Amino acid sequence: MEELRKKILSEGKICANNIVKVDSFLNHQLDVGFMKKIGKEIASRFKGEKIDKILTIESSGIAIACYVAEEFNCRVVFAKKGKSLNQSKDCFEANVYSYTRGGEYTIRVSKEFLHKGENVLIVDDFLANGAAINGLMNMVNEAGAHLVGCSVVIEKGFQPGGDNLRAKGIKLESLAIIDVIDEANQTITFKDEK
Amino acid sequence: MEELRKKILSEGKICANNIVKVDSFLNHQLDVGFMKKIGKEIASRFKGEKIDKILTIESSGIAIACYVAEEFNCRVVFAKKGKSLNQSKDCFEANVYSYTRGGEYTIRVSKEFLHKGENVLIVDDFLANGAAINGLMNMVNEAGAHLVGCSVVIEKGFQPGGDNLRAKGIKLESLAIIDVIDEANQTITFKDEK
Repeated sequence: MEELRKKILSEGKICANNIVKVDSFLNHQLDVGFMKKIGKEIASRFKGEKIDKILTIESSGIAIACYVAEEFNCRVVFAKKGKSLNQSKDCFEANVYSYTRGGEYTIRVSKEFLHKGENVLIVDDFLANGAAINGLMNMVNEAGAHLVGCSVVIEKGFQPGGDNLRAKGIKLESLAIIDVIDEANQTITFKDEK
Repeated sequence: MEELRKKILSEGKICANNIVKVDSFLNHQLDVGFMKKIGKEIASRFKGEKIDKILTIESSGIAIACYVAEEFNCRVVFAKKGKSLNQSKDCFEANVYSYTRGGEYTIRVSKEFLHKGENVLIVDDFLANGAAINGLMNMVNEAGAHLVGCSVVIEKGFQPGGDNLRAKGIKLESLAIIDVIDEANQTITFKDEK
C-alpha cells in the first residue's frame, strides 16, 4: 500500500533494536481518515470471502479492526491483556511474549464471543515474531471457528512471523513489509522496493 | 440515548459490586454499527464547538473516540496504561485508581500529541468515580490545551465522578446515567426514568 509506505517513511521514527515507531498515526495518536483507508484496503484483500468476525488484540488493533468490520458488516472481538475483575472466567487463553513490553503476558477472549463455525479474520498493527497472532490463531482453533486469514498493517519481514504463517498455508496480507531498518543511516527499506 | 438504554437492559449483565458488564457491544466485543451511532450522538452534543482532538484511554475508549473524531474530522490520542519500551520518555503522566482492575496504574500521553491551545474533547466508555477522566483532564491542563468537555457512554450516577465534574462547571455529556444497579432483582434503573 503505497500511501502507507510513504507515511511510514515520513512519520516513522527509527529507534534501536529494529523498532520503528508509528505513534503519530497508528499506535498512540490515530489518524482516523487514514485508518479508514487501511480498513478498506485490508477488506479488499479478502473480497468475496465470508467473514463473520474480526479478531484482534488490544489496544492498537482495535481501530483497524473496526474499520475492517465496517466493510464486512460484522463484529469485532478484541483479546484482552492482563486481568480485570470484570472478565468472564470462561475464556480462551494464550501466553504471548512481547519484545516491546519485555515480558510474557496472557491474552484472553471470552468463550461467549468466539463460536464454532464462525469465519474469523485476524487483524493487528504489527507482525514480527508472530507471538500475538499465533495466540489468536490458537483461540480460533480451540473455538472450532474457521480462520479465513490474517492481515497486519506492518510486517517486519526480517523477523520470522510472516514467513512462518505463509509456510503453514495461512493467507497473510501485510500492507507494508519492512525488509531493513537501518538505525545508523536512519533508513527503512520495504520488501517490494528491493 | 434510548437505543443505548435498551441495549444495556437487553445485553448488560449485572454482577456484584455495582458492576454492569456490557462486553457484548462496548468492552470486549464491539458492535461497530452501534459504536458509530454512539459517536454521532456524542458529536451532536458538542455541535458547533471547535474540536481539534479527541482524547481517550486504552482500550475501550478507542472505538468510541474514532467515531467521534470522524464527525469532527480530527485525530484521536489514546492514553496508554503501563510501560512499553517503545514509549517516549517525554510524557504527561497521571496515576489512576481502577476498581475493576483492583489497583493503581499510570497513564501516559506523549507530549508530541497534546499541544498548547488545542481544543480537546475527552471521551470514555464508563464514568464512575472519575479517576481516569480526572487524570486525562490534568494532562490537558498541563499541556495548556483547552478542555471543551467530556462525554461518556455510561455514567454510574450513584458514584460521584459525574457530579464532581458538573460541580466544577465542566460540560459533561453522559449518554446513559445508571441510577441503581439492583443485583438481587437483576434490574437497572436509569436516572431520567425515575
